[in-house]
Amino acid sequence: MRFGQDILRQADDLAAFSEDAPRITRRYLTPEHRQAGGYLLGLMRDAGMEAGYDALGNVVGRYRAEAPEAPTVMSGSHMDSVRNAGRYDGLFGILTAIACVRDLSSRGKRLPFTFEVVAFADEEGVRFGVTLVGSKAMGGSFDPAWLDVKDAGGTTLREALVAFGGDPDGWRGLDRRGRDVIAYVESHIEQGPVLLDAGLPVGVVTAIAGGSRIRVTVTGLAGHAGTVPMGARRDALAAAAEMALAVERIASSPGRDGVALVGTVGVMTVAPGAINVIPQDVTFTVDLRSASDGARRAAVAELREAFAAIAERRRVEVGVDEFYELPAAPCDGALQDALAASIARQRVPVRRLASGAGHDAMAFPPVCPIAMLFVRCGANGISHHPDETMSAEDAEIATAVLLDFLEHYEPPQR
Amino acid sequence: MRFGQDILRQADDLAAFSEDAPRITRRYLTPEHRQAGGYLLGLMRDAGMEAGYDALGNVVGRYRAEAPEAPTVMSGSHMDSVRNAGRYDGLFGILTAIACVRDLSSRGKRLPFTFEVVAFADEEGVRFGVTLVGSKAMGGSFDPAWLDVKDAGGTTLREALVAFGGDPDGWRGLDRRGRDVIAYVESHIEQGPVLLDAGLPVGVVTAIAGGSRIRVTVTGLAGHAGTVPMGARRDALAAAAEMALAVERIASSPGRDGVALVGTVGVMTVAPGAINVIPQDVTFTVDLRSASDGARRAAVAELREAFAAIAERRRVEVGVDEFYELPAAPCDGALQDALAASIARQRVPVRRLASGAGHDAMAFPPVCPIAMLFVRCGANGISHHPDETMSAEDAEIATAVLLDFLEHYEPPQR
Repeated sequence: MRFGQDILRQADDLAAFSEDAPRITRRYLTPEHRQAGGYLLGLMRDAGMEAGYDALGNVVGRYRAEAPEAPTVMSGSHMDSVRNAGRYDGLFGILTAIACVRDLSSRGKRLPFTFEVVAFADEEGVRFGVTLVGSKAMGGSFDPAWLDVKDAGGTTLREALVAFGGDPDGWRGLDRRGRDVIAYVESHIEQGPVLLDAGLPVGVVTAIAGGSRIRVTVTGLAGHAGTVPMGARRDALAAAAEMALAVERIASSPGRDGVALVGTVGVMTVAPGAINVIPQDVTFTVDLRSASDGARRAAVAELREAFAAIAERRRVEVGVDEFYELPAAPCDGALQDALAASIARQRVPVRRLASGAGHDAMAFPPVCPIAMLFVRCGANGISHHPDETMSAEDAEIATAVLLDFLEHYEPPQR
Repeated sequence: MRFGQDILRQADDLAAFSEDAPRITRRYLTPEHRQAGGYLLGLMRDAGMEAGYDALGNVVGRYRAEAPEAPTVMSGSHMDSVRNAGRYDGLFGILTAIACVRDLSSRGKRLPFTFEVVAFADEEGVRFGVTLVGSKAMGGSFDPAWLDVKDAGGTTLREALVAFGGDPDGWRGLDRRGRDVIAYVESHIEQGPVLLDAGLPVGVVTAIAGGSRIRVTVTGLAGHAGTVPMGARRDALAAAAEMALAVERIASSPGRDGVALVGTVGVMTVAPGAINVIPQDVTFTVDLRSASDGARRAAVAELREAFAAIAERRRVEVGVDEFYELPAAPCDGALQDALAASIARQRVPVRRLASGAGHDAMAFPPVCPIAMLFVRCGANGISHHPDETMSAEDAEIATAVLLDFLEHYEPPQR
């Protein structure tokens, strides 16, 4: 095995850089960020790359093309984690790209483009509540207001960055727009069961789903659980239960344009919340995603109608607040086809699938065409959890696919 | 108006004996219990009764029959309250009975039975979590283990009782079984909207509903809200929502024997409870009541079946724990008819209705036949809430009904 076992061992090494070992938690601009960054710098340099931190704490490695005027292809993923994370989310995408460079370098093979591998410093946003900090800076959508956001301990991102040795004012220089980047290709563990259920090690991502987040408040009338007849009730929880099932029903239908949706009610609170009192106030959240923005927006409209009809019939009030919306990021057709060809050359059937989770790649459409390679996630597709698993065989195949892609990819003629 | 305005004024006076005025909270064996007890003792004595505290802190007044061998008819209700209570729950039943005695006494009229009016010291059970303490002692179902139950501050009921001046070992002497009590008739605010909706001031209670309390735990599988396709989910909240609607549906059907049910899901908790995570663990409660124990038990069985079917179809686990059950207390037919006749003599249409809430009367079937008179509850039937209201006109009619009943009731021949 050329890559798989090494990559899994490296992921094990990195898992030790945690704020709460044996669990894995690695937030932005912490000592553990520096430990992981140091480890990755070592791997990059050992593989034959020039590497260093940038102004925001991203670790950036470059495997230079021979021609100084050659364009750049980028890859990478994030080195931070959620709390109590798995060990492959993010890191696999960095390690697999470094493994490709090591192989190329050992053979003395240069590419017709500079290959840049980035370990993004903050994708999850656990510490400051701001996600995709590193990749958004490169995509030109960094918001300097983020520098003044405080963590739970009252430290601003700016202060933490200075203490880390970064440069809070250096974010402008990270913007890759207009810098001759011709493709961004990210490998990532799937974080879901689609490839597992299909029996396939890898798949080509068609789009990163966009999402709507909605907060729903239902207001009924409290009453004694023994004394108010069923027909006289205005039970906020019964109404919310019906609405939650409407979310499930609408998200389970094919979207308006045939593109699938997922919809989740993840939070529900009930007040007053006593066994013998009819609920008066219920709040719940809806997380709705689709690779098709049209399908998602149509579903949000359908949800609003369904909620209003349920509320009217049950004589309760309903408030619907769509407080967050992110459009989908489609993957480039030509890059998808190139990845598919590389998969086929490994004698693996090509499966295309949407990504329901967000990734650093979402920040790159202003820079260049994007593509993503998904790798099978074991244990029912569990991620963001210590049970997250990936096999060495799958890591091997995924790395072979990326290497094949890099060796076959030809920059567009100019 | 002979009674109504005085009774409402007395309820206003009593509302001031509160632990958290201007809200009303009056728990067992507190200084406010003593204040309210002192006020009621004064009213009782002023009305012509012998009155005093008993061993458990109940206030007991007696309006003696002329014949020392005459039997006893009892009335009353509770003087304790829930937190942030209304002012008529419990107290109205005491005040209306005292008002009857005052009227009889002012006319020099004795009854063919001793009329005993009890202000029960603890029906709601807020302080020690044990309900119906006073009435259960009289009904012969006091459990001496309750004496060792502690309140939130660590004081046992025994210690509190001694500090109050009561006698923890005196509960045996309160047992009224075999003491020639021939009827217990309690007046109470309805605490629901049935009489309000019917446009009637009073009604005759047919039975005090029995109840089942059930805790349901649903265990699914957590997952990323973006990456797990709808068909692959084991969403504990979607399952629980369907179960909550099953509770509503089953409770809304006529019971097996045509007697109505009410069913409430009052508590629901969702874990992990994040907007972007599929719920794994949901717990909820069911409060199911009916005047028919058969109808209620059949509904519990039907709920268990429905929950199991939903869980199987959705591939989640369900646990159903019926942790509390109380049988219904039917009201005596002859006493119901006697109350109905008294209502009719006030030129009020007779409405019979079940009581969904529990009352001190529930403890008396081992002693004697029971009956209850309900009085209209304003403001949509709200109770256990500061908005609880009763009109002086309704208090007037209800007191006239109880007085009429007392003047017409003839002890059974022996």
